[in-house]
Amino acid sequence: MGQIETFDNPHPGRDYVIRHVAPEFTSVCPRTGQPDFATIEVEYVADALCVELKSFKLYLQSYRDVGTYYEDVVNRILDDLVESCEPKWIKVTGRFRPRGGIRSVVTAEHGAG
Amino acid sequence: MGQIETFDNPHPGRDYVIRHVAPEFTSVCPRTGQPDFATIEVEYVADALCVELKSFKLYLQSYRDVGTYYEDVVNRILDDLVESCEPKWIKVTGRFRPRGGIRSVVTAEHGAG
Amino acid sequence: MGQIETFDNPHPGRDYVIRHVAPEFTSVCPRTGQPDFATIEVEYVADALCVELKSFKLYLQSYRDVGTYYEDVVNRILDDLVESCEPKWIKVTGRFRPRGGIRSVVTAEHGAG
Amino acid sequence: MGQIETFDNPHPGRDYVIRHVAPEFTSVCPRTGQPDFATIEVEYVADALCVELKSFKLYLQSYRDVGTYYEDVVNRILDDLVESCEPKWIKVTGRFRPRGGIRSVVTAEHGAG
Amino acid sequence: MGQIETFDNPHPGRDYVIRHVAPEFTSVCPRTGQPDFATIEVEYVADALCVELKSFKLYLQSYRDVGTYYEDVVNRILDDLVESCEPKWIKVTGRFRPRGGIRSVVTAEHGAG
Amino acid sequence: MGQIETFDNPHPGRDYVIRHVAPEFTSVCPRTGQPDFATIEVEYVADALCVELKSFKLYLQSYRDVGTYYEDVVNRILDDLVESCEPKWIKVTGRFRPRGGIRSVVTAEHGAG
Amino acid sequence: MGQIETFDNPHPGRDYVIRHVAPEFTSVCPRTGQPDFATIEVEYVADALCVELKSFKLYLQSYRDVGTYYEDVVNRILDDLVESCEPKWIKVTGRFRPRGGIRSVVTAEHGAG
Amino acid sequence: MGQIETFDNPHPGRDYVIRHVAPEFTSVCPRTGQPDFATIEVEYVADALCVELKSFKLYLQSYRDVGTYYEDVVNRILDDLVESCEPKWIKVTGRFRPRGGIRSVVTAEHGAG
Amino acid sequence: MGQIETFDNPHPGRDYVIRHVAPEFTSVCPRTGQPDFATIEVEYVADALCVELKSFKLYLQSYRDVGTYYEDVVNRILDDLVESCEPKWIKVTGRFRPRGGIRSVVTAEHGAG
Amino acid sequence: MGQIETFDNPHPGRDYVIRHVAPEFTSVCPRTGQPDFATIEVEYVADALCVELKSFKLYLQSYRDVGTYYEDVVNRILDDLVESCEPKWIKVTGRFRPRGGIRSVVTAEHGAG
Repeated sequence: MGQIETFDNPHPGRDYVIRHVAPEFTSVCPRTGQPDFATIEVEYVADALCVELKSFKLYLQSYRDVGTYYEDVVNRILDDLVESCEPKWIKVTGRFRPRGGIRSVVTAEHGAG
Repeated sequence: MGQIETFDNPHPGRDYVIRHVAPEFTSVCPRTGQPDFATIEVEYVADALCVELKSFKLYLQSYRDVGTYYEDVVNRILDDLVESCEPKWIKVTGRFRPRGGIRSVVTAEHGAG
Repeated sequence: MGQIETFDNPHPGRDYVIRHVAPEFTSVCPRTGQPDFATIEVEYVADALCVELKSFKLYLQSYRDVGTYYEDVVNRILDDLVESCEPKWIKVTGRFRPRGGIRSVVTAEHGAG
Repeated sequence: MGQIETFDNPHPGRDYVIRHVAPEFTSVCPRTGQPDFATIEVEYVADALCVELKSFKLYLQSYRDVGTYYEDVVNRILDDLVESCEPKWIKVTGRFRPRGGIRSVVTAEHGAG
Repeated sequence: MGQIETFDNPHPGRDYVIRHVAPEFTSVCPRTGQPDFATIEVEYVADALCVELKSFKLYLQSYRDVGTYYEDVVNRILDDLVESCEPKWIKVTGRFRPRGGIRSVVTAEHGAG
Repeated sequence: MGQIETFDNPHPGRDYVIRHVAPEFTSVCPRTGQPDFATIEVEYVADALCVELKSFKLYLQSYRDVGTYYEDVVNRILDDLVESCEPKWIKVTGRFRPRGGIRSVVTAEHGAG
Repeated sequence: MGQIETFDNPHPGRDYVIRHVAPEFTSVCPRTGQPDFATIEVEYVADALCVELKSFKLYLQSYRDVGTYYEDVVNRILDDLVESCEPKWIKVTGRFRPRGGIRSVVTAEHGAG
Repeated sequence: MGQIETFDNPHPGRDYVIRHVAPEFTSVCPRTGQPDFATIEVEYVADALCVELKSFKLYLQSYRDVGTYYEDVVNRILDDLVESCEPKWIKVTGRFRPRGGIRSVVTAEHGAG
Repeated sequence: MGQIETFDNPHPGRDYVIRHVAPEFTSVCPRTGQPDFATIEVEYVADALCVELKSFKLYLQSYRDVGTYYEDVVNRILDDLVESCEPKWIKVTGRFRPRGGIRSVVTAEHGAG
Repeated sequence: MGQIETFDNPHPGRDYVIRHVAPEFTSVCPRTGQPDFATIEVEYVADALCVELKSFKLYLQSYRDVGTYYEDVVNRILDDLVESCEPKWIKVTGRFRPRGGIRSVVTAEHGAG
């Protein structure tokens, strides 16, 4: 996976909410080898570090050839964000385009909301 | 009814929410024999097992020739999902297309939200 | 008024929510004699009995020549539903089309939500 | 039926288009006795006379207890408007709410567009 | 297939347009055996006969267990409507829900528009 | 200002919510003399008295030549409604069209919600 | 009425289309004395002169206390614009908010489109 | 590129329109190496052959690692469709997600519309 | 930065909510020198002072040539509003247009909500 | 103004349509010095040359400090595009955000459509 870079939170004395919405996510279904498409949404309260947006874009792009399930994608992105910027609270949502006529949404969070 | 298959929850240590939205549900009205149409939405927090999506699609398709009322459809799907994957919490919603100019929505849940 | 019929709740052991949305309601303004138009929405948790949908449609149609105010329509429908099916909780909403450039919504409920 | 009144076209020297949209139309299905609901839209180029709006509202209300089919409603309204104000061109559209899961639209016009 | 019934055009002296929109169509994919879902829209100018709506609903329902391709469904419905009511002009459109991430629309017409 | 008239609450034994939405409000900016435009929304739980709708329409129209600021309009309407019908709870919202590229919303309430 | 001012067309050698949409128009119904509300839309191809926007805003505001019918408002605005800037082609549309449940649109044009 | 397969047009005696909309297209920008995302829409009148949908899905997927510009993608898809099924008329549209704050649409067609 | 002016709260005895939405905000990215675009939304409960709208518009315009990050913009606007009008509670939200295919929203508040 | 760069049309033998939509345009009102905001849309049929997108973005950004009227902006962009890439046909549309409650759209084209 690409490396998620960070920068110092410019207002560490105040809890405030940052949200990034990335509608251009694609990975590969590990069972069929067919591409999956999703919108990934990240919402967090920073502690000392903020997510650097360009590196996060490249991080998401690095899933392009990765075979992984919906439930796994969202939890892995959450884990990697927690590890890189140690937020006070964070939620990751993946909204996946329909397969077999069924669309799916997976939401995972970490820390006290 | 078709068999709902499961797979091991890849992140059992974290409570997270999975939602599947299936807009292609059809069954038969037991009184008139006419087809009913609905969108079925499932939202749950897995325990040890996740719902396998393809088998769930086939499970929903198996209602195609079944005669059953709105209130019953939603509760039966809920019961079958609870039995197959024993989630920590689950909610099933059926949004039925209008009959006699009236559209109906039935929502049932199981476990602590 | 038409008679609201009921049928036995097929899942009495579980509290679940049933919603019916009827956009074809019309009554008569008692002051001007002009027709009023509304969408009537009913949301309830059944106890032993469920509202039978066809009789409810005919019940709503029986207001067609009745002269009554917005605030009264909604409370009367609520009272008649409570009397006929004795739900654990019920809410009735009437969304009335504009008169004099002002649109109105009246919402009444009964029982513990 | 109610009488459609007219007033003198205030700008008879110019062909211009007048459109009235009435979303509160209701009549009765002659076969089932059940109420039908529609939006009636009238678009016309006046000659010497314009349609007076309040009388047209009352005219439409006079269908409230009339049993008639979709195809007939629209053509009758068109005929009555042609007779009362003799427009250069006129089109009447009825957009009927769904019956049996099917919604219908009927459009008839008179004169050169 | 179900029989499409007709009734006499109540205004045969005027060319006017009738449209019926049926969002509850389902058939079966002949290759996979999986259900397909579509909205069928019919727009026509009647000659001597109009399409009777209830029989048309039943006609559409009779595709429920029929295996047939998108391109074929729309042309067959068009042919059957032409045969039963011989309209001056008619257009049939099928809007099919996505398969493999791709949604399809097929439109066929008959007669001079 | 126009007089807000009232009528007896037809269901005083039950707390229920009445909402009126008036999108045709206009007053005058006291600084520039230019007209302002807003949608005024009133939501309340009646005690003994309900707001009579026609008098409320005329009351709102009486602001047409009044010079007053956004923050003042909403609080004055709230005060006048409290004085005239003494509701258990009431909320007034004014949604003002953009000035200088900025649109504004002011919301005030009175009583326990 | 206010005076519509003009400025020299900066590109007189090319026919191009200018559209102004003013959703804050209000006048008075001459029969009832009640205010009417509309969106006025002007679309034109300038010849030597363009409509100056601030004076046009004030011109529209000058209808605030004028009693006039829908059909007349639109034709008068068209006449005044033709007189002040002599465009090659111009169309004026008034979209009036509902009265008696019916909304109206009046469209008049001048010159070759 | 993947091979676009065809099947015999089931109604070759009638000109009718087939449209396929594929919102899951992705390729690579040849200059930056960054992924591009688009919706590809194909609309055509078949002659003897129709586009087989599953092979067309795989054909579109084969662009996943191809570096190519917007203008080129659309024309290449058009050329490949013309070569494989020789339609009477065909139009291909690519709607590309924003780059640098600018979104782009390219539309090319072949044959007499 | 421009100076945010204030005026005396006309109803200081009541806590009520004022919201201003400004969709025309632009600043400059400090890293790339490229312009950023956002909608800035302010929601607050005044104490003794209200935000004067015209000065706030000019204050927002003064960011036009300022190089600053999303997270910083929102917190600075919040700090400046707190300093100028000392509200009981205030929340500032910036909704930034997409960069690199990702759109961002930052929300900060001050005081007890 | 920035320089609009071009690249060779990759499919010069076919007339096809390219559209670019840029919602982040801002310039300055020459009379008031206040910023204006618009969406600029360009649609053209290339001859030998296509518009290079990044240079066009920078070209549009170069209006940031330029004082110019709506009618002029659109015609200048059109002239500059015609000069740089000599298209067979081109249309430029500017959709400007409201000023004084009135929003404006200016559309100019060049060449045979």
